[in-house]
Amino acid sequence: MKKVSAAGGTPAVNEHEAALATPFVRCLTRLIRAQDAYGRQDGASDVELLANYIVTEEQRRQIPIIGDPDPDMMLRLNIFYTAVGLTIEARTGLAASPAMMISHEGFGRVLLTTGRLVVFSKTVRDVHRFGFATLPKLAEAGAKLVDDAIAAIEAYPEVARA
Amino acid sequence: MKKVSAAGGTPAVNEHEAALATPFVRCLTRLIRAQDAYGRQDGASDVELLANYIVTEEQRRQIPIIGDPDPDMMLRLNIFYTAVGLTIEARTGLAASPAMMISHEGFGRVLLTTGRLVVFSKTVRDVHRFGFATLPKLAEAGAKLVDDAIAAIEAYPEVARA
Repeated sequence: MKKVSAAGGTPAVNEHEAALATPFVRCLTRLIRAQDAYGRQDGASDVELLANYIVTEEQRRQIPIIGDPDPDMMLRLNIFYTAVGLTIEARTGLAASPAMMISHEGFGRVLLTTGRLVVFSKTVRDVHRFGFATLPKLAEAGAKLVDDAIAAIEAYPEVARA
Repeated sequence: MKKVSAAGGTPAVNEHEAALATPFVRCLTRLIRAQDAYGRQDGASDVELLANYIVTEEQRRQIPIIGDPDPDMMLRLNIFYTAVGLTIEARTGLAASPAMMISHEGFGRVLLTTGRLVVFSKTVRDVHRFGFATLPKLAEAGAKLVDDAIAAIEAYPEVARA
């Protein structure tokens, strides 16, 4: 994997650096480090930590969706939505707790709630293949979830505080 | 177990019959019958179907909370909250979907949502011991959850329909 230290890289590299610097991705890498209880990845760069979230179209096709999603996958999904929740909290001061109900077959529902408000609700399927084509796409997806949730909180402020 | 066919029983028996006739308990027994896919309990009375939900104080104390709650227990909990959701739907016309996140240790969170509104949210623990001392207490607990949820829907009607 190519590395750059200064800001003078190619546009693609700069896009990478910009994605790493977004509040959502910073929160996500912090959480990944936090759950690495044995320090196996102490020396890993942010890009290396996030590698499991990057799944290209071709890789996706090769992941079987037969059989149960493995526990690592479920933890990865949990960390992703927890990072969304924490970024919402950092911006609004309101805790957003994730609730995931995923069947052993990788189908289910993910919710984020703030007070009495559901700020995010999604039916998920093929959890086995959860991932994003590129790092900027990961950053964009996370930021969009955060923005949508904050829009919901602004639309129903008293419910979010109930 | 004593049985009465007419309304002329003792007060305790009448209380029992009244509990069985409440919308929540009727919905709960219907769901228990529905998940009995092999018809093992086709001949069972409603009281017999609900027997697993009745846990006396002494029985509670004897149930160990060490180890994982068994899948039957989790199904029982799920059916209980689904019955709450369906009773809410019958009264308001709004679907209330349960979401349960219970760790393998029997600790977790149960949510019921309607549109963007969280109509019920509870931290549960010692799921192993889930149950009610008597049938009327089961009926009462279910009815209270339904009433509280409907009060929330009436307080925030537009969020419940969002």
